[in-house]
Amino acid sequence: MLKFNQSFSFDSLEKDKEEMDRVLKVLKKEMLNDEVGYYKLPQNSLKHIITIKNLNLKNFSQIVVIGIGGSSLGIKAIDQILRPYTKNAKEMLFLENSDPVSIRLTISKIKKEEALFFVISKSGSTIETTSIFKTVIKHCKLNLKSLDKKRIFTITDAGSSLSNFSKKHDILEFNIPLNVGGRFSVLSAVGVVPLQMAGYDMENVLNGAGKFVNSFFDGKEEHLLQKASCLFNNSQKTPINVLFSYADGLENFAKWYVQLWAESLGKIDKRGQHVGLTPVGLIGSVDQHSFLQLIIEGPKDKSVTFIKINDSQDDLSIPDITLFGIEKTDFINTQKFNLLINAQCDATMQSLIDTGIDTDIITLDFVNAHNIGALIMYHELLTSSVGEMLNINTYNQPGVELSKQILYKNLIKK
Amino acid sequence: MLKFNQSFSFDSLEKDKEEMDRVLKVLKKEMLNDEVGYYKLPQNSLKHIITIKNLNLKNFSQIVVIGIGGSSLGIKAIDQILRPYTKNAKEMLFLENSDPVSIRLTISKIKKEEALFFVISKSGSTIETTSIFKTVIKHCKLNLKSLDKKRIFTITDAGSSLSNFSKKHDILEFNIPLNVGGRFSVLSAVGVVPLQMAGYDMENVLNGAGKFVNSFFDGKEEHLLQKASCLFNNSQKTPINVLFSYADGLENFAKWYVQLWAESLGKIDKRGQHVGLTPVGLIGSVDQHSFLQLIIEGPKDKSVTFIKINDSQDDLSIPDITLFGIEKTDFINTQKFNLLINAQCDATMQSLIDTGIDTDIITLDFVNAHNIGALIMYHELLTSSVGEMLNINTYNQPGVELSKQILYKNLIKK
Repeated sequence: MLKFNQSFSFDSLEKDKEEMDRVLKVLKKEMLNDEVGYYKLPQNSLKHIITIKNLNLKNFSQIVVIGIGGSSLGIKAIDQILRPYTKNAKEMLFLENSDPVSIRLTISKIKKEEALFFVISKSGSTIETTSIFKTVIKHCKLNLKSLDKKRIFTITDAGSSLSNFSKKHDILEFNIPLNVGGRFSVLSAVGVVPLQMAGYDMENVLNGAGKFVNSFFDGKEEHLLQKASCLFNNSQKTPINVLFSYADGLENFAKWYVQLWAESLGKIDKRGQHVGLTPVGLIGSVDQHSFLQLIIEGPKDKSVTFIKINDSQDDLSIPDITLFGIEKTDFINTQKFNLLINAQCDATMQSLIDTGIDTDIITLDFVNAHNIGALIMYHELLTSSVGEMLNINTYNQPGVELSKQILYKNLIKK
Repeated sequence: MLKFNQSFSFDSLEKDKEEMDRVLKVLKKEMLNDEVGYYKLPQNSLKHIITIKNLNLKNFSQIVVIGIGGSSLGIKAIDQILRPYTKNAKEMLFLENSDPVSIRLTISKIKKEEALFFVISKSGSTIETTSIFKTVIKHCKLNLKSLDKKRIFTITDAGSSLSNFSKKHDILEFNIPLNVGGRFSVLSAVGVVPLQMAGYDMENVLNGAGKFVNSFFDGKEEHLLQKASCLFNNSQKTPINVLFSYADGLENFAKWYVQLWAESLGKIDKRGQHVGLTPVGLIGSVDQHSFLQLIIEGPKDKSVTFIKINDSQDDLSIPDITLFGIEKTDFINTQKFNLLINAQCDATMQSLIDTGIDTDIITLDFVNAHNIGALIMYHELLTSSVGEMLNINTYNQPGVELSKQILYKNLIKK
């Protein structure tokens, strides 16, 4: 279960209520006429789980994911947070960046005979992904005419270049719905297929997401629209939105959120204005010793969302040991670390409220597949809601084309 | 060698020149009268290397660092970037956050008989550090009355609670100069001692830093003051400063930079104004698929500094393989990944310049200890210069006290 508590200024409820109703209607229409596809992924992706179970694959211990951006961040997020809570999850290796040092290191860890390879690219021709795939073919001696191809799976748009490749070599291919953008694709085959193969309970991730999206469209998650409205109304005053997660396991989730938020909302709006909100991902308590000073005493240009895990299901406690000279820290002896980290979260949030900073907090009772699914869907719906209020196209990314064109021109020259 | 290229608007050179001269004088005075201690660390920390060599420790394979914030970020940064370039570096384990899940996981990797333990806290009583130290004592069965104490080292201020503890138990203690703040301490014993023990060439890290700081005070690094002046003059227009590093190995360096920049510059200035610049750390090419869209089409509130490694000394190349359907990516076949990632860096930078965004680039010819030392000192001096222009105390962090007080009050209640 997720609990939402908001402590921010919310002035003109009446006027905003109208806008919230409008946004809910627009999103619902996008869902009903299949203009935007991620809303229905919780039901539409169940078929992949059945496909995987029927494959009945055995004798593998590694999942190698070749993909970047939306084809990697969500997978890494779920893998990291659920791993300590999942028995016998397979090792996952990620090949994403065009950095030779890290590619070499990761490839050296692959045990070909125990590995399944997932090549993930929505467009099918992402330069990092295809280049690394070729490198893996060479270094792992994958023979596309042998049984090796049974170890390879592709996840891509129907009709893409990678799809054509898969058909040619009779490689099992999973498709991303055409109406689902890369950064909204974690609950499509992109996330479901490799994570289910790795041993994660993706059915419950989908269930958690599905329950939340249904509740949202039933009008029962008004807090989400209220938050969207606040973020939108304050987007000039607080253009920076901090996600402050009190769990090391949420570090990759924060990176997923950064892509979702930055790439969806950083846009030229329909009146030609540059709009957008800047995401920052922090981890508590570590970043209390880093970024917190800036939030408190720097410009008041930030809102802060906390994520707290009520019960980490780990009872590790601080031993009842007194160290000479350091006796003044004994007040915490015998307490659980779970209590300490949550007390730190509460204290930091309180100090921000006292300083007049807009904050809210999402509390997970436990880390489990269901809650992580809901957390993902919550952030996707929040992004869509703010995007609609900003009067932008939330689902494209035209700004990155220029850099790709320059790259292509420069490389062709060489 | 580091090369600096700046492509940003720099209007009023004459007026700014005066300010730059003033700042250089102020910093020089701080150095000469020992008000600020980090400037002299490159020479003052050499003694620790001699101490370590004389210890002549053998038969250990793990370095366990217990510390948080300034007592961990810089160590992790140097470990990560130099590891692929350092033969036989010992494994390093970091215990920092009060998260029970990650503490338990890290402690399970410790092999007591092969480990050296470093307890690092400037104040000596950081709650995470002391709590985790007690946990390590219990779980690794460290007996402070036995030879176990020869495996433990502390790094702290002279006269601190941790220093008193060390004296009581005859544990070898290294001190942080009192005029060096936590986030400026990576070149003090904090970084030098554990990293030298791990097998890194800290002498050359110090030499690289020393050469740069000398050159700066000799007036030969004017570009640094120019950049500081630009960042300061544009701090209203572009309050967000992105560090976009094209190497996976610089991810922890970016976290170190975020602490340095955020905690030093996010302040109430001497006129009572909330000032500060917000740091964001990105990794290329990965974040071209994430944050880049926001930089290009979102609000023009960001400046971007690129870091590029000219020659990664890794000749991994893209195999000359043609994949059916994906032939259009063959233009990059046979090229080195080193060329690809740097071409991506150049193309992204060019696209930002074309969009009118202030950018600059720091190019390292190679990754080596000397260059990393210079890169660290460059960022420290840049921080001090901007801080002086902002008219703040760059070296304190009063804003985080409130949260600590609330924590203490709440925990004592329980």
